[in-house]
Amino acid sequence: MDLNLAEYDVLGNLAHAKMLETIGLLTAEDLSALEQELKVIHSQIQQGHFAIEDGVEDVHSQVELQLTRKLGDTGKKIHSGRSRNDQVLVDMKLYTRARLFEVVQATEKLFDVLVRRSEEHKNDLLPGYTHLQIAMPSSFGLWFGAYAEGLIDDVIQLNAAYRLANRNPLGSGAGYGSSFPLNRKLTTELLGFEGMHHNVVYAQMSRGRTEQAALTAIASLAATVSRLAMDVCLYNSQNFSFIVLPDDLTTGSSIMPHKKNPDVAELLRAKTNRMKALPMEVTMVLSNLPSGYHRDMQLLKEILMPAFDEILDCLDIAAFMLENMKVKQNLLDDAKYDLLFSVERVNELVIHGVPFRDAYRQVGSEIGDGTYAAPRDLKHTHEGSIGNLQTIEIQERMKYEIAAFGYDKVTEALEKLLRG
Amino acid sequence: MDLNLAEYDVLGNLAHAKMLETIGLLTAEDLSALEQELKVIHSQIQQGHFAIEDGVEDVHSQVELQLTRKLGDTGKKIHSGRSRNDQVLVDMKLYTRARLFEVVQATEKLFDVLVRRSEEHKNDLLPGYTHLQIAMPSSFGLWFGAYAEGLIDDVIQLNAAYRLANRNPLGSGAGYGSSFPLNRKLTTELLGFEGMHHNVVYAQMSRGRTEQAALTAIASLAATVSRLAMDVCLYNSQNFSFIVLPDDLTTGSSIMPHKKNPDVAELLRAKTNRMKALPMEVTMVLSNLPSGYHRDMQLLKEILMPAFDEILDCLDIAAFMLENMKVKQNLLDDAKYDLLFSVERVNELVIHGVPFRDAYRQVGSEIGDGTYAAPRDLKHTHEGSIGNLQTIEIQERMKYEIAAFGYDKVTEALEKLLRG
Amino acid sequence: MDLNLAEYDVLGNLAHAKMLETIGLLTAEDLSALEQELKVIHSQIQQGHFAIEDGVEDVHSQVELQLTRKLGDTGKKIHSGRSRNDQVLVDMKLYTRARLFEVVQATEKLFDVLVRRSEEHKNDLLPGYTHLQIAMPSSFGLWFGAYAEGLIDDVIQLNAAYRLANRNPLGSGAGYGSSFPLNRKLTTELLGFEGMHHNVVYAQMSRGRTEQAALTAIASLAATVSRLAMDVCLYNSQNFSFIVLPDDLTTGSSIMPHKKNPDVAELLRAKTNRMKALPMEVTMVLSNLPSGYHRDMQLLKEILMPAFDEILDCLDIAAFMLENMKVKQNLLDDAKYDLLFSVERVNELVIHGVPFRDAYRQVGSEIGDGTYAAPRDLKHTHEGSIGNLQTIEIQERMKYEIAAFGYDKVTEALEKLLRG
Amino acid sequence: MDLNLAEYDVLGNLAHAKMLETIGLLTAEDLSALEQELKVIHSQIQQGHFAIEDGVEDVHSQVELQLTRKLGDTGKKIHSGRSRNDQVLVDMKLYTRARLFEVVQATEKLFDVLVRRSEEHKNDLLPGYTHLQIAMPSSFGLWFGAYAEGLIDDVIQLNAAYRLANRNPLGSGAGYGSSFPLNRKLTTELLGFEGMHHNVVYAQMSRGRTEQAALTAIASLAATVSRLAMDVCLYNSQNFSFIVLPDDLTTGSSIMPHKKNPDVAELLRAKTNRMKALPMEVTMVLSNLPSGYHRDMQLLKEILMPAFDEILDCLDIAAFMLENMKVKQNLLDDAKYDLLFSVERVNELVIHGVPFRDAYRQVGSEIGDGTYAAPRDLKHTHEGSIGNLQTIEIQERMKYEIAAFGYDKVTEALEKLLRG
Repeated sequence: MDLNLAEYDVLGNLAHAKMLETIGLLTAEDLSALEQELKVIHSQIQQGHFAIEDGVEDVHSQVELQLTRKLGDTGKKIHSGRSRNDQVLVDMKLYTRARLFEVVQATEKLFDVLVRRSEEHKNDLLPGYTHLQIAMPSSFGLWFGAYAEGLIDDVIQLNAAYRLANRNPLGSGAGYGSSFPLNRKLTTELLGFEGMHHNVVYAQMSRGRTEQAALTAIASLAATVSRLAMDVCLYNSQNFSFIVLPDDLTTGSSIMPHKKNPDVAELLRAKTNRMKALPMEVTMVLSNLPSGYHRDMQLLKEILMPAFDEILDCLDIAAFMLENMKVKQNLLDDAKYDLLFSVERVNELVIHGVPFRDAYRQVGSEIGDGTYAAPRDLKHTHEGSIGNLQTIEIQERMKYEIAAFGYDKVTEALEKLLRG
Repeated sequence: MDLNLAEYDVLGNLAHAKMLETIGLLTAEDLSALEQELKVIHSQIQQGHFAIEDGVEDVHSQVELQLTRKLGDTGKKIHSGRSRNDQVLVDMKLYTRARLFEVVQATEKLFDVLVRRSEEHKNDLLPGYTHLQIAMPSSFGLWFGAYAEGLIDDVIQLNAAYRLANRNPLGSGAGYGSSFPLNRKLTTELLGFEGMHHNVVYAQMSRGRTEQAALTAIASLAATVSRLAMDVCLYNSQNFSFIVLPDDLTTGSSIMPHKKNPDVAELLRAKTNRMKALPMEVTMVLSNLPSGYHRDMQLLKEILMPAFDEILDCLDIAAFMLENMKVKQNLLDDAKYDLLFSVERVNELVIHGVPFRDAYRQVGSEIGDGTYAAPRDLKHTHEGSIGNLQTIEIQERMKYEIAAFGYDKVTEALEKLLRG
Repeated sequence: MDLNLAEYDVLGNLAHAKMLETIGLLTAEDLSALEQELKVIHSQIQQGHFAIEDGVEDVHSQVELQLTRKLGDTGKKIHSGRSRNDQVLVDMKLYTRARLFEVVQATEKLFDVLVRRSEEHKNDLLPGYTHLQIAMPSSFGLWFGAYAEGLIDDVIQLNAAYRLANRNPLGSGAGYGSSFPLNRKLTTELLGFEGMHHNVVYAQMSRGRTEQAALTAIASLAATVSRLAMDVCLYNSQNFSFIVLPDDLTTGSSIMPHKKNPDVAELLRAKTNRMKALPMEVTMVLSNLPSGYHRDMQLLKEILMPAFDEILDCLDIAAFMLENMKVKQNLLDDAKYDLLFSVERVNELVIHGVPFRDAYRQVGSEIGDGTYAAPRDLKHTHEGSIGNLQTIEIQERMKYEIAAFGYDKVTEALEKLLRG
Repeated sequence: MDLNLAEYDVLGNLAHAKMLETIGLLTAEDLSALEQELKVIHSQIQQGHFAIEDGVEDVHSQVELQLTRKLGDTGKKIHSGRSRNDQVLVDMKLYTRARLFEVVQATEKLFDVLVRRSEEHKNDLLPGYTHLQIAMPSSFGLWFGAYAEGLIDDVIQLNAAYRLANRNPLGSGAGYGSSFPLNRKLTTELLGFEGMHHNVVYAQMSRGRTEQAALTAIASLAATVSRLAMDVCLYNSQNFSFIVLPDDLTTGSSIMPHKKNPDVAELLRAKTNRMKALPMEVTMVLSNLPSGYHRDMQLLKEILMPAFDEILDCLDIAAFMLENMKVKQNLLDDAKYDLLFSVERVNELVIHGVPFRDAYRQVGSEIGDGTYAAPRDLKHTHEGSIGNLQTIEIQERMKYEIAAFGYDKVTEALEKLLRG
């Protein structure tokens, strides 16, 4: 799992080396040699040729070993003003920042599918429920669109986590700083961070907390997807029968020859539901640990890293499922749904001057004595209603929230660091 | 508990009434009468004279009852285009928004105490630990300052929750909108919201999610405080003896006459630790509920409302404790802490040209053979280190993050609504 | 909340006093006076006349105060060999033991309702689902009976918690015992405990753990009830329409005149779901606390005590709801459920010698080409199937598991202690 | 992961086949051929030669495939009266039962180490703490013994989970039974179950619940170990310095040459703390799923199976660590611990007739005015105190609780099934 950090370790080392040279702890020649060698390692990593050798403890030791093998004493100098804690911490920040934005991008893809299907089915009505009781007319346009808009709130929560990850801890050492005159502002810029964790003790305390924030945002996103999957499972039941899943998303039964079970939707629901426990796992590990690093924090990698893979998978599957799902039409023709229109009848009376509460009572009586008949031509026009989905407004908000990450600047800084 | 929502219910009603008038569902006279009466109720609430009468179901019914008693049919008209769901939802958004900012303000107070004490004790050294083993020199300046900076990250997470609360659901009705031509943009402005929940189905789905986000941010803040309380309990143990708690924050034992137990710090730790389970309580209630309102969501009020009171209490107590705690001086004179300076000795050698890894080994040998002696005059100067706490930078960041809430605009809008 | 412990505090004091006399720390006269006075306090408590006076810290101090007021120095002697920790601990054990059995008794009442309704509706068929897809025929007999049997497993888990509570910590003092020659075996018998917590350090460590075990068992029981409530909400939806809830268990809508919402079932679901987070609350408080008492543990009372009230309420409501729910008949006559019988058709072929896998394929083809017709007369006879519910076996198991608590012996011991 | 179930699948098939023959669904020749082939597969599994072929869905299909390859139609017949759900369920019950007992055995090993070390160090005193403040004298005998006794309560909770696993679901099919006249009593006996899940719907509902109960018991055991690990980390800190960890259980620092960090104890703490979230993961998946099987439940295997491996590892490491830890002697000679004996001084006065409360006050004054001097020869003799650890009683309880599993009968039944 440590290999996930390799490229970030090289980036951290590059920034640190550049900075050491400016404060006289490396000569210009040292720096040049180190940069060259670090870039070699970086391209090994990109090409999948980098590996941790037997007997080497971790990715940081492997990088240092390769430097020392090639450059001798110069390689050894790069650890000045650092500690293992600070290396792992820098790597985790860079890694978490990158992967959180990857999640944002996958979220946007799912969003696009939802928006597309919402527009496509804006005229396909669906019973709307409250308390699982039929309530008022809804539409597939509204239903798909609701989940699209929900993802915006997930992106907002991802952004808070991203901002916690996007702070430079480099220079905090073991959590108590260094007597070297490190220039942390410089490494902050080189690594494209929004700013630094100023206080070195806090830099170390951000360990665990960064993971916690990331997993909390992931759990929130997972909750959105799990609710969607629950709807799909329910709407696919014969008792609702609102949608049809393609054959490759259903499976049969070993005993009942008539079955087409929505296993994919169920697994999606289960996986995303399970992810909702992730923040709790971190909390369990961190609870009541006094300040200062503890080895316990190493375990958090094992919680965080697979979570990124899992949520990305789930977003993919959700997008695939939504893309390939068929939507039934004319659902509200079924007499079972007649009462969905009772509020339309109430409002009809209100528009003719009956106070709302009196109109409500009158329609109740009509239903009771069998005289109830409701207008079935819906004229919902206000913002966000059946007839006015506001897809463009929703899309613009998503764009705005994603732009707020400023990830371009990160990419730019890192490319410059690797090229420069 | 419902009374907490009363003032927000009036505000929602005011905005809705104003809007109904613009679309012809209320006459100008209706509106004027309703506004006057709603303001009367608002001042009853402010003065503590508002109560839910026997037999009246909830705060919304009580407000409507008072309007109808005074205004007859005009009072009944205000429910046009609304539903109970939408009323509760609007009230919860306004309530949550206000209370989240109250939490931000209390967080800032605690921050101020931490910053003050950090500056006051910037020269008082403290052993720094990793793995609960003595590691390197730290200081009370660093320790207090670390928690101050940590609170900034809490404010960032509170902001994400705040933004979820700061969206207008008014007009979503039972979650499926209305056939009335409601002007939701207008109510969004009147209530000072950042924007609206566009999709009406999503507006309803934000129920639960808003509470979840708020409680998640509160839990994160609680975690910061609980860790601080753990440190206090530990540092107050005779085996550390770094701080002295005032007598009114300790209690004796019924059996051991020598005891001064840090009960307040322990209760603070326990209460804040317990709060970390709050998001899980909401998750439990919401899991696998299909879309659409369910009565289950009413229970969330009972989780959210006391949580605000509790975190505000905890922030107060934490500030009081920190303000009144005494800090011991000259702690590092104790020979037990000699090895804290081993890295200073390593760095001394590095500065004289020994590669870091070799210097490390040499000092290890010195410790082994008893020749170890380390310089004890610390010259940590880089950003965020013992000698350079960056208090001003940290204070500026906090100011910036709090300004990002834009709460002034909210206050302004609501005052205008009440006055207008 | 402390008042809940009053009667148990008296019982603990009675046992301790009797024991102190046997080891010479109280005279026979002291004991006689103390016993008399403790019984007076006990009857005050029973009659609701006992209260904690202003300025008195807790229930233990109040009891001691009343003793000392009446008996002077003799009253003061009763604390010999005890500590506040040990008092609270003994009270909590006695309290938890009693309330856990109260929960068992309420569980038995719900069980009785389920069993009764299972028998009553053993011939009323219900579609059986897997994956929320119609699967095979089930019955209300099976459905009610399943929840009845599930409660047996809850009682088994309650028993494990009960056994942890049913251990005597008296004599452990502050967690390190006493130099007095206490006779802990005697107090174990007097208080009707199954045995003692031998090791005094462990006796103290059982604090928190006892509460945790109790809440875990309660959460498990709550999960059973919440699943039942989910079924009820679903089966009550128009899309299933399997049951009818009485009017006093449903409520209307403020906007839709046709609604009968199953609010009670939903609140039951929400409350029991929320209770599933209870063990986590305790875990949050206890995590990483080193051994030895911490004030944090006091907070656990606030989690445990209301949980008992809440689960008892929920069990009551569940029983009431089940008792008053109507069950629809002839549900399977609906053509939508025809395929439920496909396995019957497969088995028909198997009985005529077709290997299972071949019969399965053949019926699949029949369904595909429209020739499928299944026998509709079910002959399920094996243990636990539609035609053989095994109600008596299930009832006997429940009786057996409840008898395993041996609560008679507890009642007997405590009555003897109060009388003797 | 499915391979873990292979041997249990064979056992379930053997029992089912034997039973099918008794009800005429298999001939004696069929049975004989199936038994022979199933035993061949069983020995393949034991020797590690069994594998799931490419394109084969799961372990159940692989077994059936091998049977059918060898025996043709006879192989196909074995699925009569079963379903995939019932196969997985039976396998999971058998698997969980076996592994829970494996955990019990590993717990007993840790218990033995604790008991041994408790006896070995019964005279080595240790400061006892409450509120992390020095309180009264304790001993390593008490400390080790406390954790030993704690494991008994874990075994009690494991037993409740074991009893839930030890129930036969075979014959429940897809959760709605079968029209074949299955003899479930016979398979219950053949598989050595304590009894059957009578109701077939409940048999299916026990899915998830069995895993939940197992993980809850594991989490409780993990909590015991995590607290032990926390104590070790604290006692190993220079500020306590009560124990010495062997070099192979500590690691150095990349920056501080003086460090010996207790990484193993910390990882043990972290891993066991993390395990406390396991029950929540299951809860997340199961919450609000209506009755009837859902594919979601398949995910539970991925939570349960690694948890068994992890807890077994943790128990091993804990035992190794405790076995190799050195205990410091004469700790209480340090003047810092003088006040530990204040209760001894109080009790001295009590024995000379001073009422406890007065003696307490007097010693308080002595401490205040510097005249305090306490007897240092402890004479704690009561059950469970420093001088009377009751190791034999604790050992007997453990034996008794383990015997209650009756695992011999299980082993016997399964061996008979494989041989018979």
